[in-house]
Order: sequence, then structure tokens, then C-alpha cells
Amino acid sequence: MSALPECRALLLELHGGVLHITLNRPDSRNAMSLQMVAELRAVLAAVRADRSVRALVLSGADGHFCAGGDIKDMANARAQGTDAYRELNRAFGALLEEAQHTPQVLITVLQGAVLGGGLGLACVSDIALADHKAQFGLPETSLGLLPAQIAPFVVQRIGLTETRRLALTAARFDGVEAQRLGLVHFVEQDAQALAERLDEVLQQVLRCAPQANAMTKKLLLASAGQPSSQLLDEAAQWFSEAVAGEEGTEGTTAFVQKRKPRWVS
Amino acid sequence: MSALPECRALLLELHGGVLHITLNRPDSRNAMSLQMVAELRAVLAAVRADRSVRALVLSGADGHFCAGGDIKDMANARAQGTDAYRELNRAFGALLEEAQHTPQVLITVLQGAVLGGGLGLACVSDIALADHKAQFGLPETSLGLLPAQIAPFVVQRIGLTETRRLALTAARFDGVEAQRLGLVHFVEQDAQALAERLDEVLQQVLRCAPQANAMTKKLLLASAGQPSSQLLDEAAQWFSEAVAGEEGTEGTTAFVQKRKPRWVS
Amino acid sequence: MSALPECRALLLELHGGVLHITLNRPDSRNAMSLQMVAELRAVLAAVRADRSVRALVLSGADGHFCAGGDIKDMANARAQGTDAYRELNRAFGALLEEAQHTPQVLITVLQGAVLGGGLGLACVSDIALADHKAQFGLPETSLGLLPAQIAPFVVQRIGLTETRRLALTAARFDGVEAQRLGLVHFVEQDAQALAERLDEVLQQVLRCAPQANAMTKKLLLASAGQPSSQLLDEAAQWFSEAVAGEEGTEGTTAFVQKRKPRWVS
Repeated sequence: MSALPECRALLLELHGGVLHITLNRPDSRNAMSLQMVAELRAVLAAVRADRSVRALVLSGADGHFCAGGDIKDMANARAQGTDAYRELNRAFGALLEEAQHTPQVLITVLQGAVLGGGLGLACVSDIALADHKAQFGLPETSLGLLPAQIAPFVVQRIGLTETRRLALTAARFDGVEAQRLGLVHFVEQDAQALAERLDEVLQQVLRCAPQANAMTKKLLLASAGQPSSQLLDEAAQWFSEAVAGEEGTEGTTAFVQKRKPRWVS
Repeated sequence: MSALPECRALLLELHGGVLHITLNRPDSRNAMSLQMVAELRAVLAAVRADRSVRALVLSGADGHFCAGGDIKDMANARAQGTDAYRELNRAFGALLEEAQHTPQVLITVLQGAVLGGGLGLACVSDIALADHKAQFGLPETSLGLLPAQIAPFVVQRIGLTETRRLALTAARFDGVEAQRLGLVHFVEQDAQALAERLDEVLQQVLRCAPQANAMTKKLLLASAGQPSSQLLDEAAQWFSEAVAGEEGTEGTTAFVQKRKPRWVS
Repeated sequence: MSALPECRALLLELHGGVLHITLNRPDSRNAMSLQMVAELRAVLAAVRADRSVRALVLSGADGHFCAGGDIKDMANARAQGTDAYRELNRAFGALLEEAQHTPQVLITVLQGAVLGGGLGLACVSDIALADHKAQFGLPETSLGLLPAQIAPFVVQRIGLTETRRLALTAARFDGVEAQRLGLVHFVEQDAQALAERLDEVLQQVLRCAPQANAMTKKLLLASAGQPSSQLLDEAAQWFSEAVAGEEGTEGTTAFVQKRKPRWVS
């Protein structure tokens, strides 16, 4: 596999086909700096073509996931002019787009602050696990700002109806409410329960064939909205290639022989 | 009305404006064979223009709805080459598209296995009733395959957020969870309760005018996503035709006269 | 600010940055007449550019929100021909489009009848509060008609899956069910509780900066569906303008100085 990049704002740990990525700026509740954005994008690029890395687990150091962008930086840096702000903002949106489309299964573990950009990252994960006391919110409008790169992903995640209320009131909500809104899949009572749920989910993910999962994820993201005949034509081609390919042959043969396929350890 | 086709894999029973279609390959839990796909498409085509058939009720014989495609067939038939797989896969997708757009109200009654293609059929029904113990799932990725024709309809049914978890973990879930996910409208405790709910739903459907329902369904499917001014223009034209047409005249006159319209028996 | 138009079918009351609009045809349960449509459109146009009007609260006189279009008018006026119907229908759709895109935060308070066009208005509000006994429904198909201008907004509000059942069965449902369907955000037990919830929501809205809220709402509506790189580019530009603008400067400075921004009274 490709070497992982050197990181200052992230901790990386790879074992058993799973890359654990920890946002590691605990002094600012893991606020999303430009450095952190660049490192996350480099990590995603490094593993993109590597089917031996089957899942990414994204969490935050010291009891918080991510408190959003650094507001103090923003106030201090106003002298730089609007171009610098636009580029900084757009770079975070590019991270969200790349994380959304990463071929690995992306799992977020959400504790403490999950605000602004942190909420955006939660919205592009395939499976989201939250502590019941986690604090979610889009505070931007209360600061005179827009959740500019984040809002489109929140709309896609939980729909327009709930997003408009949350964004236009800057409301805070906890993990239980996040599950009710359809933002997270599981809500747990403490760190121990979160760890157990993560193990369970990872076992399920590792039962699925890596390339089949990558192609299925590509299909799901392409089909958001209405099914089109063109997409269904393309999907039929992908299906026939999967059936005739190594994974499809192994998987269906294993099924007939009542044994586990080779990708289940 | 047009004659119904002769069927080997389906049982058909028409009475009171409702066509009951039973998937009838109980030895394989009503797995979707190419024969069954062709027969379902022929039945839908036969009734498409017939407004006297107002609802279709789709269920499975012997306690299962449909266990998906036949995996053993797939493993055995590999010699045929990828073209055969692509065409077989795409034919099922064509069935889903045609079932989605059938002008009749399509009701599915879901018991036992509702897997893969069976789940796809559930996702294109206007009203879905499930037994609380029914077993839903997308097992494809655990077999090295893709839910290729099915996934776009699942995304449209329950949204991207839940579909990505279900497809990338090959998770199983029951009828209660299917209702929570928004996949089915009603969940019942046993066959008797399912039958009573079906009666109630059919009575509601039969209160609605056949052509008005067909045009409304066309409008709903066209508007998935964002309302557009162009669609609203077209819908205003349909509305004016409905008001001036036989059903609109009868319905609004009956309302003023405080009597039932003629389509309510 | 621009003067508000003279209204016969509406009551208007402006104070504290909030315009209260009451549908006021209690003899017909506030059924939507062409006059009422025209007056609502004029009111929205009058406040559109005025950021001192920060929220619109839409409710109905005498315990009902809106019972839909006037069916007796429709039956009586058939002599006018289909063109008149098309134009009347499309004018209501234009109102829904304009209400959906009004830059103010639109709040609906839903009691009694919320039928047909009344349901449509609920579906374009940013925040919807309902009495638990409110009666929602799309009765059109039972009258031989289509919910022509309304259905696309219902699909956008609660999704295709629930809308197809509701529209094709003409089912009635109450406020509790409306919340379960995701149509309304809050359901309350009586008028007193509705008034308290409205106060709470207005306080939250008034914490948010007016121009930031208007731009965020524009972004949310533009992003319904899938996030696109083009929209994210545009949003980054809006963000940089917000940061450098008066509200962003005030909001982030107030945050650093641990004081309230000027738009919070």
C-alpha cells in the first residue's frame, strides 16, 4: 500500500484493514485548521486506491469530535482579505466532497462538540455513532456567518425540512435528537458502549467484499435523487463485472459450498 | 379490459377493481427468476391502460415475499458470460421502473424474506404493509456482488443516510425497523392483522377517483426532488383538465350535493 | 421599510421585527380565495428586501389554519372554462414558490383544518408548529381532482414514500402524525403551549443575523438534492463576503469580546 503521510494535527493507526484517524488538536476541541484539512485530504488520497484498507474510523482526541472552524483565527485574520477566506472555506468543502466519495467505509465516532465543520464531517460518514450527550449544532448564523460548505451536506443527510429549522435558529441538539433527525445511526450511553458498537459495526463491514462495497458506495452516491435508466444501465454493467470477477466468483461459490468467503477473517 | 397473460410463476386473482398478484415459487422462497420478471412485466403492461383495475396487491406464497435473485442459478450459470448477467440484471431493473410508474396504486404485503430484489419491489410500492417478523436486507455485498438495480430505489425510498449503512454492512432488519426507516407504512403482528389492514387501505384507495389517482401518482413521481416552475405549469394544466373532466365534475358535484361520487361503491 | 398593502382577507400586525399574518376568512375556515392569494403575494413582495422584518408568522383566524380551496366556488364556476381554472391553480402555486423563497424565516402555526392548499403552505414554512388535534390531509383525489400545485412541495417536505400513500388514499392525520412524518417540527397540546413555543422559536430566530439567515436560506433551498461543486464554489464566495461584511465583523468580534452582537436585543 501507499505510505501514509506524516501528520501533526492527526493521529493515525492502521490495523486489521481499518485506519483509525484521530483529530488531535485538543486545546481547541479539535477545531478544523487549514493544516488539519490538508492532512485529512492527504490521508484520504493515500488510501483511495488501496482495497486492503477497508474502513476509516474518524474520531476526536480528549472527548470532543470537532468544534468547527477557529472563530478567533477568523476574527484576527480579517486583514488578509476576502480571497483568503473564500479559499479557506472552499478547501474545507473539498475535504467534505472527498470524504463523501472515499471508497472505504467511513465511520465517525461523535463525542462532545460536533459543531459547524464537525457536523459537516459527520454528515458525510457512512455510519455515524454518537454519545447521547454529544452537542451538535450549526452556530454560524448567530455569528453573522453562513454554514456555507456544510449546509448542502446537512440537507442531503437529514433533508431540507429539519435543516432549515436548525440553520435558521442556530439550535443545539444532543445525540438522542441527532438519531431522531436521522443524522446518526446509533446513540450510546458512554465511551465503553461506543467502543462495543464500533466493534460490531466493523465486523459487519468486514463481512462485505471490499471492491463490491466500493462500487456499491459509488452507486449509492450517484443515485441520490431519482433512479435514472442511464444509471441503471451502468449499474447492470458493474453487476455483470462483479459476478464474473474474483469477488463475485468467490462469494457465490462460498455461498453454495456453505463456507465463509476469503475476505472474512 | 385487456386479457391477463397466462402465468406459471404468479397467481392472479381479480375482483372488485383489485388485482391480487402472488409470487408463487415457494420452493425457493419466491426467488425472482427471469420467468417471474417477464410475467410481472406482462401483467403490468396488460392493466396499464385499464382504469377499472384500480389497485394491485403484490404478495408471496407460503409465508415469504421474495428472497431475491437465485444465487445458485448465478453460480451455475457463470459459463454464459457477463453479457447474460448484465441483461438479466437490467431486466429486473426494468421491472422496478415499470412497477414504480404503474398507474394503479401498488400495495405490497411483506412477510418472511424480503431480500435483495424483494426489497427492491417493496421500495416501488405506493403502500407497504409488513409483518413485524419479516426479514429485510441487502445481502449482495457479502456475496461479492452489488445491489445494482435495487440500490437507487432504496435511496429514493429511505434516503442516502440509512441506505449507505444497510448496503455497506449487509445488515438484516425486521418489520418494526423497516417502519422506523420509512420503508413500510404499516407493521402488523400477524397474518390476520395484515389482512384487516389491507382491507382498510383498499377501502381508502377505492374512495379516490381512478384517473385522478393515476395523474396524481404521475405528478408525485415527476416531482421527486425539487418543485420546478415547469412542472407546476404542467400540473396546473392537468388540474384544469381534471376539474372540467368527468371525474372532477362528478366529484365536486357530489360534494355539493352531500352524496358519494359514483366511484365509491 | 415599504408600506404594507391594504388587505381584506388578511390581518397584519408588525412588531419587534416580526410580521404576524392571519388568514381571516373564518366563515369558510380561511379557505384560500384568489383575493387571499393575491394579498399574501403582495405582502411577501412588500417585505422581501426589508431585513428589519426578520420573521413572518402565518396563522388562521378562529381556530382553523386553512381548509384549502373553495370547492363550492369550483363547482359553481365551471362555466368559466378550463383556462380560468388553470390560472387560478397556477396562481396558488406561484404563492407557494414565493413563500418558499421568502428571505424572512417563515413560521406557520397550525390549528384545526390544514387541508389541501393549507397543507401546501405548511410545507413551505421554515418552522411549523401544530396543535395535536389539527386535521391534515390531501382530499383532492377523493373529489376527482389533483393536489396539482401542492404535491411537489409535500414530496419535498416529507419525501415520496409518505406522500404517495397520503395522496393516493386521501387520508386524514393529526398533529402528532404530522410530526412523525416530518411535516411539522413541534406539536403542542393547546393554544397556550403553541404561543409559548412560538415565543421560544422567535427568540432563537432573533439571535441569528438577518442577512446571514437570508443567505443561508437561499443556500439551503439551492442545495436541495445533491451538493454540487458549483454550488460549493458559490457558497464559498458568499461566505467570504459574510465574513468581511458588517454582520460577520460584528458577530465574530462580539464572540471574541464575549458580548451579544447588535442584532440580539
